[in-house]
Amino acid sequence: MSHFQHKDLLGIDGLQVQDVLDILDTAEVFHEVSRRPVRKVPTLRGKTILNVFYESSTRTRTSFELAGKRLSADVVNMSIAASSVKKGETLMDTCKTLEAMQPDLVVLRHGASGAPHYIASRLQCAVVNAGDGMHEHPTQALLDAFTIRRKLGRLSGLKVAICGDVAHSRVAGSNARLLRLLGNEVRVVAPETLLPVDCDALGMIPVTSIEEAVEDADVVMALRLQRERLKGALIPSLREYSRKFGLTTERLAGAKENVIVMHPGPMNRGVEIMPDVADGARSVILDQVEAGLAVRMAVLYLLTGGSRLGAEEASS
Amino acid sequence: MSHFQHKDLLGIDGLQVQDVLDILDTAEVFHEVSRRPVRKVPTLRGKTILNVFYESSTRTRTSFELAGKRLSADVVNMSIAASSVKKGETLMDTCKTLEAMQPDLVVLRHGASGAPHYIASRLQCAVVNAGDGMHEHPTQALLDAFTIRRKLGRLSGLKVAICGDVAHSRVAGSNARLLRLLGNEVRVVAPETLLPVDCDALGMIPVTSIEEAVEDADVVMALRLQRERLKGALIPSLREYSRKFGLTTERLAGAKENVIVMHPGPMNRGVEIMPDVADGARSVILDQVEAGLAVRMAVLYLLTGGSRLGAEEASS
Amino acid sequence: MSHFQHKDLLGIDGLQVQDVLDILDTAEVFHEVSRRPVRKVPTLRGKTILNVFYESSTRTRTSFELAGKRLSADVVNMSIAASSVKKGETLMDTCKTLEAMQPDLVVLRHGASGAPHYIASRLQCAVVNAGDGMHEHPTQALLDAFTIRRKLGRLSGLKVAICGDVAHSRVAGSNARLLRLLGNEVRVVAPETLLPVDCDALGMIPVTSIEEAVEDADVVMALRLQRERLKGALIPSLREYSRKFGLTTERLAGAKENVIVMHPGPMNRGVEIMPDVADGARSVILDQVEAGLAVRMAVLYLLTGGSRLGAEEASS
Repeated sequence: MSHFQHKDLLGIDGLQVQDVLDILDTAEVFHEVSRRPVRKVPTLRGKTILNVFYESSTRTRTSFELAGKRLSADVVNMSIAASSVKKGETLMDTCKTLEAMQPDLVVLRHGASGAPHYIASRLQCAVVNAGDGMHEHPTQALLDAFTIRRKLGRLSGLKVAICGDVAHSRVAGSNARLLRLLGNEVRVVAPETLLPVDCDALGMIPVTSIEEAVEDADVVMALRLQRERLKGALIPSLREYSRKFGLTTERLAGAKENVIVMHPGPMNRGVEIMPDVADGARSVILDQVEAGLAVRMAVLYLLTGGSRLGAEEASS
Repeated sequence: MSHFQHKDLLGIDGLQVQDVLDILDTAEVFHEVSRRPVRKVPTLRGKTILNVFYESSTRTRTSFELAGKRLSADVVNMSIAASSVKKGETLMDTCKTLEAMQPDLVVLRHGASGAPHYIASRLQCAVVNAGDGMHEHPTQALLDAFTIRRKLGRLSGLKVAICGDVAHSRVAGSNARLLRLLGNEVRVVAPETLLPVDCDALGMIPVTSIEEAVEDADVVMALRLQRERLKGALIPSLREYSRKFGLTTERLAGAKENVIVMHPGPMNRGVEIMPDVADGARSVILDQVEAGLAVRMAVLYLLTGGSRLGAEEASS
Repeated sequence: MSHFQHKDLLGIDGLQVQDVLDILDTAEVFHEVSRRPVRKVPTLRGKTILNVFYESSTRTRTSFELAGKRLSADVVNMSIAASSVKKGETLMDTCKTLEAMQPDLVVLRHGASGAPHYIASRLQCAVVNAGDGMHEHPTQALLDAFTIRRKLGRLSGLKVAICGDVAHSRVAGSNARLLRLLGNEVRVVAPETLLPVDCDALGMIPVTSIEEAVEDADVVMALRLQRERLKGALIPSLREYSRKFGLTTERLAGAKENVIVMHPGPMNRGVEIMPDVADGARSVILDQVEAGLAVRMAVLYLLTGGSRLGAEEASS
């Protein structure tokens, strides 16, 4: 019996704690599927999933594509380059056209914040936000929560440090929302130019040094530095940024002993995270990738009408 | 028992009325398949379909890909950019190479009129023309006919107005051929620079104003204005073009009461068609997209050796 | 019972004669599968294959994709353009990320010689080299051997002439290694600027004229001339190159009567090979393409844990 009643997954905003637990519990079942010799269940046979990406993303697109295929869905990728957007068709017309092909679910990545919400309110099929502008990237936050729960055994009462370009990061935005919802303390640290103006509204506690952010933390999450920030003069230099905000073994020593280190990828080794930390015993970065598949399988499953999997269903 | 005996679908030229009816009747069965909870039949399991696109086309490529997958075929997309054509391999060598991989069917879009015919005469596998230069786009005309039959209940004795860049449009070309074959009156209206010189041969009746074209029409089809026509100085300005040839509610009032409005997409809203017409009660534009899938499933099915579907086959 | 015990296929270097025979014998079974009306076996259902291409290649990527699909594997294509490499992620991090998605096998094409070896030694899943820089392209050499065996009935004691840009060709490199391993004589002919400096180490016998190379040959293999060699001033002109090294009917007359002519494609007709030779009775160029599918099916099968196919398995 599923508690999950949403038509879409557009962001962490709008989810209840029970929704999150439904997704994570379902993901546990699928996590195991990907480790079987036969990494596939017939659950979504005959369902159609469209991956519509207005921004290129090998990693996230591949994760959603594999998630769909391991559920036996038909998956079609549509990479819509900036050039063809200039053809003049509106986003709404494109999506109405896609809907007329009777997909069961559209995965949408778009550069404009709110694009998936705009679309979802006008389409009958399910819509999953795979990243919209600087707004939300909910499956990333869910896969991070999944990883935290597996590694630390709980999902509340934790001290979490998010380090880096928080202001421009939909990953940080979705993570802060979700971690607050579940009852955790979320500290953020960044150059002032890369801190959001509305930390309070997002449930983030800004601190001024990475040492302070990491102190006694259960989870330390380094964000990817978008190199275009350099051109925008938002940071002085890579070297200066790395010296002040890079995650080093020394800095990590201030955290709890069993702290876990996360990064959404792709990493700039030697910039926001040092190689010995990325590859060290506390790093769960590759676990996050594996969790991504399981969480996306769960989301696709729940939004296309599945109830929470019974053991017998999952073993088919 | 199928009447359909062609090896390829290269254009409307060469089809008999009975061929068209075979395709449309088969498409009716598949139209229903895409509306089921399980949108898939095992009909083409183990068949291979290659989508070979020398021009980019998200919409048509996706429609063919989904059509193949809903029939359980293996579908492989090959997007051949202009750059790799420069590698020096001839179109024939590329196609011979593809054939050596034993596909059952090749879907080909190419910028050169006649390219699919040249290829098809030399390959043993089936070839479907998905658009060749300014020549033909037969599945578009067939899906339009399918839509007309569903909406108006018949396919002959209709007055059809095609409005816009008729001269450069393979959509107009294939539609005019098919609608004439079935016994309809096809009027075309466009700036003189965008009218074909051989209207007679194509079975088109040129008229001088959109009001005259639309008068008492059963079907009004607006064509996409290729914006590059502006650069070519074939039209004075978008505003002028729209003022004289744009499809408005007022102009549509001259048509029959149950007129249907069609557009092959993607639309330039406010240029060749006004938003209230595109989204109005007479618009069947999204029905056309849905019909596209059904018609393409029928074409793939018939050309790979299927006979007309019995009810029991379709329900498997 | 399989003799094939390798984790990866990185090159011909490292293979034993028995390994080669295992692959070719398995490929014979799959060669027949692609000629059936139902071109598919359920052998790799539930296995995941990632096609990771850092260089674009429609032909090889399609062959691997179809090979995987005809074995019922889930195949995901990842085309990683130079642009996204600049994002700063290392090749190792990209591959570790891919591995965390639990593929069974990664097919890798990369511009850097040795990239697949570097990766394979650090990943647990199987890796197939689909071409690395100017180094190896083992499935090409294996499909050529497969073709030779089918056409000439044996794989040793043959005189083989390889003509063209030997120095820069991973096809020539892998073929020379394999043909030597099997006990054949490999002659190479090219402008001096396009001959490798270490012919001896590669088991190649350099000769000075194409007539001498072809004399009494059982197999003549023309290599594609990379047109960028012209810019590099390594050859004087296309016309001069073709006049001295192009494969003509006259030149072929010096070979054995039942000589076969090979080319890895795509061909520059009229440059390294004349049309009448490419399309002539001795040409096996399209057989090579068909063999490519069968050999790649065999490689995917053997590396994902298959033993040599029994007749009953293949007929399922």
